[in-house]
Amino acid sequence: MLFDTIAAISTPRGEGGIGIVRLSGDKAFEITEKIFHAKSGKKISEMRNFSINYGHIYDGENLIDEVMVSVMKAPNTYTKEDIVEINCHGGLIVTEKILETVLKYGARHSEPGEFTRRAFLNGRIDLTQAEATIDIIHGKTEKSVALSLNQLRGDLKEQIEHLKKLVLDVAAHINVVLDYPEEGIDDPLPANLVGNLEEVIETTDRLIKSYDKGKMIKEGIKTAIVGKPNVGKSSLLNSVLKEDRAIVTHIPGTTRDVIEEVVNLKGIPLVLVDTAGIRNTDDIVENIGVEKSKKMIENADLILFVVDGARELEEEDLKIHDAIQADKVIGIINKIDMERKADISKLTKVTKWIEISAKENLGIDEMEDEIYNHIVDGSIEDSSQKITITNVRHKSALEKTKQYVENMFETINLGLPMDLLAVDIKGALDSLSEVTGEISSEDLLDHIFSNFCVGK
Amino acid sequence: MLFDTIAAISTPRGEGGIGIVRLSGDKAFEITEKIFHAKSGKKISEMRNFSINYGHIYDGENLIDEVMVSVMKAPNTYTKEDIVEINCHGGLIVTEKILETVLKYGARHSEPGEFTRRAFLNGRIDLTQAEATIDIIHGKTEKSVALSLNQLRGDLKEQIEHLKKLVLDVAAHINVVLDYPEEGIDDPLPANLVGNLEEVIETTDRLIKSYDKGKMIKEGIKTAIVGKPNVGKSSLLNSVLKEDRAIVTHIPGTTRDVIEEVVNLKGIPLVLVDTAGIRNTDDIVENIGVEKSKKMIENADLILFVVDGARELEEEDLKIHDAIQADKVIGIINKIDMERKADISKLTKVTKWIEISAKENLGIDEMEDEIYNHIVDGSIEDSSQKITITNVRHKSALEKTKQYVENMFETINLGLPMDLLAVDIKGALDSLSEVTGEISSEDLLDHIFSNFCVGK
Repeated sequence: MLFDTIAAISTPRGEGGIGIVRLSGDKAFEITEKIFHAKSGKKISEMRNFSINYGHIYDGENLIDEVMVSVMKAPNTYTKEDIVEINCHGGLIVTEKILETVLKYGARHSEPGEFTRRAFLNGRIDLTQAEATIDIIHGKTEKSVALSLNQLRGDLKEQIEHLKKLVLDVAAHINVVLDYPEEGIDDPLPANLVGNLEEVIETTDRLIKSYDKGKMIKEGIKTAIVGKPNVGKSSLLNSVLKEDRAIVTHIPGTTRDVIEEVVNLKGIPLVLVDTAGIRNTDDIVENIGVEKSKKMIENADLILFVVDGARELEEEDLKIHDAIQADKVIGIINKIDMERKADISKLTKVTKWIEISAKENLGIDEMEDEIYNHIVDGSIEDSSQKITITNVRHKSALEKTKQYVENMFETINLGLPMDLLAVDIKGALDSLSEVTGEISSEDLLDHIFSNFCVGK
Repeated sequence: MLFDTIAAISTPRGEGGIGIVRLSGDKAFEITEKIFHAKSGKKISEMRNFSINYGHIYDGENLIDEVMVSVMKAPNTYTKEDIVEINCHGGLIVTEKILETVLKYGARHSEPGEFTRRAFLNGRIDLTQAEATIDIIHGKTEKSVALSLNQLRGDLKEQIEHLKKLVLDVAAHINVVLDYPEEGIDDPLPANLVGNLEEVIETTDRLIKSYDKGKMIKEGIKTAIVGKPNVGKSSLLNSVLKEDRAIVTHIPGTTRDVIEEVVNLKGIPLVLVDTAGIRNTDDIVENIGVEKSKKMIENADLILFVVDGARELEEEDLKIHDAIQADKVIGIINKIDMERKADISKLTKVTKWIEISAKENLGIDEMEDEIYNHIVDGSIEDSSQKITITNVRHKSALEKTKQYVENMFETINLGLPMDLLAVDIKGALDSLSEVTGEISSEDLLDHIFSNFCVGK
């Protein structure tokens, strides 16, 4: 397909050594020619394919930056179109300025994910691979990135192709039966084709079931740390976020007040919600009251309910306890380095208690083990050889596939005429094609690619 | 010089389409060879210089990412060493993982600015150009980036070389006089060489004077918005930060509580300090009291003192007024859409008042003009043809140069023996060499490059 020429900043926003402004489309070279003065004096058209070229970007007389320009000719590129990447200094202003110049000379600012969308529309990758690309970029832990890499490699795509082939075999057989009734094939379906359908049900079922785990690995467990003021939430948070931990990310929320931090707990991302009120550099105040705790509890997948072991329980502890959902909570008794005064037997919703001293760094590792076990609950086995789906879109489509094939079995078992199978066969094939994007609407594509960064 | 092989993530931290892990050193190719499987099957040594190569990064059996690898052979590279750039997916985890792999196979994690330090130590650029590189990356407005680009191009370097040549001419003459006293050159210095020294003084003086303006363009004006609660600081902030403004950056400070935002006011960066307490999405509370206001006032270059025009002045207004330095303040009377009740004549420290209604968006442009004029105060003329220095290190060195040459004039005017000039000539040359880094200590280099990002 022929599209216009798009451009965007492809590196993360911020300050770094290198920034990249990327162009894709049939005018990518022409536009670059107007603004790039190569040290070699060469024109873009004279440069080797897949070469890097030193020079300067100018807007007319105006020097914009010293750059390296990569020239990649269609069709063996990311988008299957001509691509230019301008590697410039990685400052906010200077990358913006180069983008501005590129737009001025005829490129259009790309939509989020538009480069990858073209890779899909031009047939280089299927939709599961496009989705894997965004998941790799947003991946919060190595486990989640590994799942996405498998998907990018085409594991899910191949699995779906295989399922389609199984259904198509059945469809072919049925066509023959319907076209040549005189052949007298009255056995509704040969055993091997019944096997086909069984395999489809089995596989879709396994994939659907893998979703909960996949979602958890991909999106993380929303975890709230609640408790009355001064029970030690802030110190607990700092213990969990301790410096030696591999990856800690700060995610500013929609308002300045909400800060989320992601902790990598043995490969599972714990998303600590609304830590803004807890985090306090001088550790004196943790101004999270009962109302705020209730709000946090509502939105959490996991609640860490902290009580002060060295004080009697108070009204506030009980109020927070009332708000908790029993199946989501782990109780944390803090300050075990001091004499126990809290009578936790009143807090009946909490069945699992862990004793720690955040101050003395006691029990932290045990707490993390407990949290991991609580979440995983035996559900994570070694999944390196199996496909795990992480995308609710895939899950919904596969649920439809499974349903259609189950309908087919029902038709067969009831001994109904085989031409009744046609609708379900088409449904099964269509729902599988939805996964890979062979069948997709503009709206769906808009939805998927709007989650991308601009520049990918 | 031969150094070990270093590696770092060269793109900004964050999520984006592309991330780059960069290696430099004589083992860069060898290390990449161990982990990169090119689609073409080629070895690094077989790849063309300055070529881009598609393939995958593996740690043993373990797939890390799908990448493009740029191969650049010494000496025509950024560092004058062999360089490899691995362009991968721009996610936090995946770029970290590639860096980890590269380090595992023998690279050392680079110090901040170490790539540029090598460019300097290997003689590709001088110290002013190295410093310009970091200034381009951190540049807050187009004006500041333009100044740094001139410096990167070598404008300051050439200026300094020229000054050195002027002093060296004088030194050569004096050497001749001292070596061949029989020649009877008793006129202490020919007019053209006096002219040389005058030019040095004139030029250093101009450069030194350009610094204040340069610093302002580079670093921005620390601006505090103060006033008692509910005078409209929050709405004022939002007016200034309005969406259509070119560049707004959020700079998280050292603690979570301090947030700075940079507004581009006609090319001058206004750094709005400590907006965390002001910014409030629901505009109800602006919990900045008198104490906090005092603290903000202390650290600011410019104070925007907001009073509520529709209310009588209160104790708090007066207290904040007491804390203000008169020469830094611009008074803002908000809520002029309502009847005036505030008697601002009591606020004698404020000589300039601007009337606005943040709510009705009245007077905002006028306010911005006033702020600009207040800051600039006629001090910014068109400086495109002149060198502006932005670095206090350069200023100090040039002040020394000027002093040494002034000493020389004194010696000459007093008719003292010419050999007394030797010390001052050496001083002048050394201080000029400090600017370009021909004379530099490890400590100084450590100091300069520690301001860089890792990966540049």
